[in-house]
Amino acid sequence: MSGCIFCRIVAGTAPATKIFEDDILLAFLDIRPITRGHTLIIPKWHATDLDDLNPALGAQLFAFGHRLAKAVRRSDLGADGANLVLNDGKAAFQTVHHVHLHVVPRQQGDTLTFAKGFVLRRPHDREATAAAIRSGLDRLAAEEKAV
Amino acid sequence: MSGCIFCRIVAGTAPATKIFEDDILLAFLDIRPITRGHTLIIPKWHATDLDDLNPALGAQLFAFGHRLAKAVRRSDLGADGANLVLNDGKAAFQTVHHVHLHVVPRQQGDTLTFAKGFVLRRPHDREATAAAIRSGLDRLAAEEKAV
Ligand SMILES: [Zn+2]
Ligand SMILES: [Zn+2]
Repeated sequence: MSGCIFCRIVAGTAPATKIFEDDILLAFLDIRPITRGHTLIIPKWHATDLDDLNPALGAQLFAFGHRLAKAVRRSDLGADGANLVLNDGKAAFQTVHHVHLHVVPRQQGDTLTFAKGFVLRRPHDREATAAAIRSGLDRLAAEEKAV
Repeated sequence: MSGCIFCRIVAGTAPATKIFEDDILLAFLDIRPITRGHTLIIPKWHATDLDDLNPALGAQLFAFGHRLAKAVRRSDLGADGANLVLNDGKAAFQTVHHVHLHVVPRQQGDTLTFAKGFVLRRPHDREATAAAIRSGLDRLAAEEKAV
């Protein structure tokens, strides 16, 4: 789907600040973040919505969302939680029609910042933010290795 | 966790309008729905948040969320989409501290109804709503069988 911005990000013909990539998934910073570290996770194959998405691919998408929610708590962002949101279908406010899972890191007492971010959606320092999230993924992997 | 309302629903000592149940998961109507058919999916074992939830259990939780998003489109609710939301941690507006995934069915052009529902969160006819969603799960299963 050359007309799809997320397929172009996968193909490398549109820019993105990547957090994680494997054969199946790509995670990158939302260019209009609600909070610092707001990340989108997508399957590398085009799927318009959940109806169009293979269940096995869906499982991997959500599994990485689970992992990222754990990672942001361990990251230099110092998140205390996260909102995981998948808007499925135009009726549900889906704006890019390539399935994507939002992971929005949250801090204790950030309700006003969150509300402001929801309206303004201004980018933060992208490289530093991506590095902070990756620190959390590394710490999570180290923890799992130690078990 | 006898103090946990969702554990009590699992144990059958607190009421709920159930949509689906197996050995691992329970899905039931939110008592303060944003839209008609607003459902919560929970693991039957108590897990406070995603950090506390076994990844394999998480995979099953999200897989059923994916399935339910497909089912509501096929259901007598006639949904055109759904919002899947998991608020992970108090900082992220998690109010019941037993992991739960929201599936909020949406209709084309329901933005005002959605906004009103977000504020009022009034229950609809529970039994009819649950039956409507189950019709979608049945149709999805029949479709899969036919492939
Ligand atoms: Zn695409
Ligand atoms: Zn519980």
